Amino acid sequence: MIEIELRFRAGENELEKIEKLGAKLDADYASTDTYFTYGNLKKRKFVLRIREKNEKALLTFKTSSHAKDIAWNEWENQIEDPKMLMNVLSASGFKEVVVIKKKRKQYSYLDYEINLDEIEGLGKFIEIQLMTDKNTSVEVLRDKLADFINQNFGVAKNELIELGYVKLMLGEK
Amino acid sequence: MIEIELRFRAGENELEKIEKLGAKLDADYASTDTYFTYGNLKKRKFVLRIREKNEKALLTFKTSSHAKDIAWNEWENQIEDPKMLMNVLSASGFKEVVVIKKKRKQYSYLDYEINLDEIEGLGKFIEIQLMTDKNTSVEVLRDKLADFINQNFGVAKNELIELGYVKLMLGEK
Repeated sequence: MIEIELRFRAGENELEKIEKLGAKLDADYASTDTYFTYGNLKKRKFVLRIREKNEKALLTFKTSSHAKDIAWNEWENQIEDPKMLMNVLSASGFKEVVVIKKKRKQYSYLDYEINLDEIEGLGKFIEIQLMTDKNTSVEVLRDKLADFINQNFGVAKNELIELGYVKLMLGEK
Repeated sequence: MIEIELRFRAGENELEKIEKLGAKLDADYASTDTYFTYGNLKKRKFVLRIREKNEKALLTFKTSSHAKDIAWNEWENQIEDPKMLMNVLSASGFKEVVVIKKKRKQYSYLDYEINLDEIEGLGKFIEIQLMTDKNTSVEVLRDKLADFINQNFGVAKNELIELGYVKLMLGEK
């Protein structure tokens, strides 16, 4: 399974474009992601994400992107009592990296997942994910996704954003 | 709720003493606790414990003992896929502190929990816990527990061990 995602700043009429495609609304939710790390914030080797969504919480450990080539890079589990965990983490010397408050409308269309996101403090974005089981290279997949975005949303390749919301929020590159 | 626990090295006839009390066998299990921390192992500010027991796994964050006076010192949650978590932790720069392999027979008698433990690499111990909801000081509770141990197991106060298995295994004081 290869998965790739790209995003771009949403214009005024994105919802109409999504509906015109005939994409199916799969979910509409608000979530708050609180990221922690230990030690140096900028050179963080991992993040611990606590996602609160619909009264449920999910804990995720992610090794940071400069270690992307390793096989074990993410683990997650549903949890109870996320506030208590945050308190224990703070008391243990973990530092909060960033909080991402997101409102998302999630659509599906063919192999694409199309998300209309509003990120508190950052603005509105469209994030589109393309997944495939096929034996396709990342480059080919990225081109296919960029073409899809260009054709259906009129966004040029140089306007596409590869950085995730965490790095965008932190102003990192 | 106040809880206190003391342990001592088990002699040959501890099982008979426990049975003579009329204590009830509540559980008989083997568990493996793997402890991780981040940064300095000796000056660790927290431990992350992954307990594997009866095909189930439990994740616990504990702030270390020199921060004992804070309200938020422990959080735990049942988890899936503990081996995957350990791999992600190792890949993220966490270090394994110690592994404690324990066989425990757990008995209850009045307000006491009596555990006959065999710790791989350390030997056999009796660990006794006393809990109370009453408005009792830790000192009074500790004395009561020490007296109970002396009367029923013939162990003197100066033979009692307050260190936990992690510190015992690491040779820490």
